[in-house]
Amino acid sequence: MTSEPDVIFDAITPPDAAARAAADARQAQLTKPTGSLGRLETLGGWVAACQGQCPPALFTRPRVVVFAGDHGVARHGVSAYPAEVTAQMVANFLAGGAAVNALATTTGASVRVADIAVDADTDPAVSTHKVRRSSGSIDREDALTEDEVARAIAAGRAIADEEVDSGADLLIAGEMGIGNTTPATVLIASLTDTEPVAAVGRGTGVDDAGWARKTAAIRDAMRRVRPVVADPVALLRVGGGADLAAMAGFLAQAALRKTPVILDGVVVTAAAMVAEELAPGAREWWVAGHKSTEPAHAVALQRLHLVPILDLGMRLGEGSGALAALPVLQGAVTTLANMATFADAGVSTGEDADVETPATD
Amino acid sequence: MTSEPDVIFDAITPPDAAARAAADARQAQLTKPTGSLGRLETLGGWVAACQGQCPPALFTRPRVVVFAGDHGVARHGVSAYPAEVTAQMVANFLAGGAAVNALATTTGASVRVADIAVDADTDPAVSTHKVRRSSGSIDREDALTEDEVARAIAAGRAIADEEVDSGADLLIAGEMGIGNTTPATVLIASLTDTEPVAAVGRGTGVDDAGWARKTAAIRDAMRRVRPVVADPVALLRVGGGADLAAMAGFLAQAALRKTPVILDGVVVTAAAMVAEELAPGAREWWVAGHKSTEPAHAVALQRLHLVPILDLGMRLGEGSGALAALPVLQGAVTTLANMATFADAGVSTGEDADVETPATD
Repeated sequence: MTSEPDVIFDAITPPDAAARAAADARQAQLTKPTGSLGRLETLGGWVAACQGQCPPALFTRPRVVVFAGDHGVARHGVSAYPAEVTAQMVANFLAGGAAVNALATTTGASVRVADIAVDADTDPAVSTHKVRRSSGSIDREDALTEDEVARAIAAGRAIADEEVDSGADLLIAGEMGIGNTTPATVLIASLTDTEPVAAVGRGTGVDDAGWARKTAAIRDAMRRVRPVVADPVALLRVGGGADLAAMAGFLAQAALRKTPVILDGVVVTAAAMVAEELAPGAREWWVAGHKSTEPAHAVALQRLHLVPILDLGMRLGEGSGALAALPVLQGAVTTLANMATFADAGVSTGEDADVETPATD
Repeated sequence: MTSEPDVIFDAITPPDAAARAAADARQAQLTKPTGSLGRLETLGGWVAACQGQCPPALFTRPRVVVFAGDHGVARHGVSAYPAEVTAQMVANFLAGGAAVNALATTTGASVRVADIAVDADTDPAVSTHKVRRSSGSIDREDALTEDEVARAIAAGRAIADEEVDSGADLLIAGEMGIGNTTPATVLIASLTDTEPVAAVGRGTGVDDAGWARKTAAIRDAMRRVRPVVADPVALLRVGGGADLAAMAGFLAQAALRKTPVILDGVVVTAAAMVAEELAPGAREWWVAGHKSTEPAHAVALQRLHLVPILDLGMRLGEGSGALAALPVLQGAVTTLANMATFADAGVSTGEDADVETPATD
C-alpha cells in the first residue's frame, strides 16, 4: 500500500535559514556574553527558523495530542500493568487527572486525546480517528493490515492538520498504551540494527521475568520485521501498531505544515524515526524534550541527531517529558525576543575591556 | 568579628520529614507507575518537606534577588568585560532588559536588584544595603574589613527577611559583577582543596591570556586565604567580597526562615558553600537549578551533595539558570498536588497485572 496517497509525503521544506542567521546575529547584540545562555541560544535560533521570523514569538497555543492504543503483546506478560489500564487512563485524561494534564496546566499547553486503537469503547469525542481495537501481537502476527496502516498514518496526518488549522503553533505527541514500549523498541532496534538486550528497558516497571518475556517477544518481532525494515509503511504494519503509525503520520505532517514539535520519550521517538523515513528532513522541525530511562530512547535520539533538553529520569510517556521541556523553549524565545541590546541599554561590550596591567604581586 | 550577632545563626531546622514521607506515600497512589516521573517525584517531596504540607502548593511569589558588586581584581585583566558593565547592567535590570527579566516573565517570578558593592552610584532604590564601592582586589589585599563583612552578611540576611516578610515563598539569589567568578573560584577551591587549574573557568568568556592572569590571581588569593579557610566569616572578608558575603547571609537566612531556594551558578554556589559553613544544614533548603560550564561549579555542587536539575551549558549568572529550572519545580508540585489517585480515577494498579502465558512462538 505504499503507493497510497495517504502515505506519500511531499518534500519537507527545512526551517528558514535566514531567520536562524538573524537570530544568531541578534544573540551577539543582546546584553550578555555571546553564548552564555548555552542551549537557550541554539533553541531560540531553531524557533526563529521554524517560525520564519526573528525575533520569534512566544508559543501561544502549544498542543499535546495523546495517542492511545493497545497492543496484543501486552496480553503476553511484557508489562507491569494490565491492558485495561489504557482505556482507564483515557478516561483519566478526559477527567484531567493524569500527569500530562497537571503539567499542561503549569506550562500553558492544552491536551487532546485520540483513541487510535484502544481495546475498548471510549468516549465518542476521542474515537473519531479510531482504526481498530488493539493492534496485533507483533511477536506472532502483523500489527495491522495494509489498509489499517494506511488509515492510521492518515489519521495522524488529519489530526496534525486539525490542530494546525485550529491555531496550534507547537505540537507535542504523547502516548498511552500498555505494552507500547515493546513495538517502539522493535522499531528502533530494527532501524538501527541494535541487539535487543541493548535496547530493551523496563517500560513502566516490569520485573525480571517480565523483562525476559519482553526481550523474547522483541526478538521474535524483530525476526518478523527484518524483510520489510527498509519500507517504513510495512515496518509500521508488521512491527509497529496503529498508534505508532498515527504518531508517525502526525510528526511528518507537522513538519510538512511547518509546525515545530517537541518529542517525548521512547515511544514517540520510535514513531519519529519512522516519520523521518517517510518524510526525510522532518526531524529538523523537532527537538527532543528529554532523555528517558529507556535504553532504546538514547539509541533513537542519536540516530536522529537530536540532543535532549532535559534528563530527569522520567519514563512515563503521555507527553510529560516534552511538557517539562516546554518552558525551556519559551525561555529561549523570551530571551531572544525580549532582551535589550548592548546599544539599547548603553552597556559596554567585551571589546571595550580595559585591562590596566596583568596582575602581579 | 565572628562574635558579632549578625554573623551568628541559630540552628537550622531541617525540612519536615513527615511531609516528605506523606509525599512519597502519595506518589505511590497517583495514576502513574511509581517513580516514573523521575526527578519530579523527589523534587515534589522536597517542596512538600519545605512547605511542611502534603500536597504542596504551587509557588505563587518566587522572587529573584540579583546581588550586584564589583571586585578590584577585575581591574587586572581577569574578565572579558570592563568593570563599568556592572553598573550598566544594574540599570538594565531596572529597565527590564536583561536575561533574568525576560526569564522571570515567562516563569512567573519577579526580580529585585540589590547593589551591595557596585563601583558607581546606582539608583537609590537599589542601594539601601550598599556596603562599599567595589570589594578589594583579593590577589593582593583583603576584600573587606571586619566591619564590612559583618555588614554585608547582615545586609543579605535583612534582604531575605524583607522578601519572606513580603510573601516570597521561593527565593533565588542571582548576581552581577564583572570579575566575580574569580573570588567565587577562590572560595570553592579553598574550601575543597582543589588546584586552581582544575577549577578556573572562562567566566563570561575571557581569552587564553586572561585565563592565565585569572589563574595567577586565584592562586595568589588562595595563598592569602589559607590561614583563615576554617573561619567562614574571615574567608569572605579575605578572599570573597561584599556581594558574596551578602549572598551567603541571604542563603543561610532563607534556610533559617524555612524558605526554599533554587541556587544558580558558580558564584551563588560559592556563597552557598560558605553559607553552609555559617549555618550547617542550610543546604537542605536549597536545590541546584543547573550546572554551569564553570569547572568550579561542579566541584561546589558535589561538596554540597546537590544534583543540578538542568544542564544546558549556561554560564550567564543573574539567576538565569535557577529561573530556567523553576518550571520543573512547579511541574513537580502540580503533579504531586493535582494528579488523580488510582482509586479516584478507577485505574488498575500494577498488582492487577493479568499475565496469561509467557510469550512463545
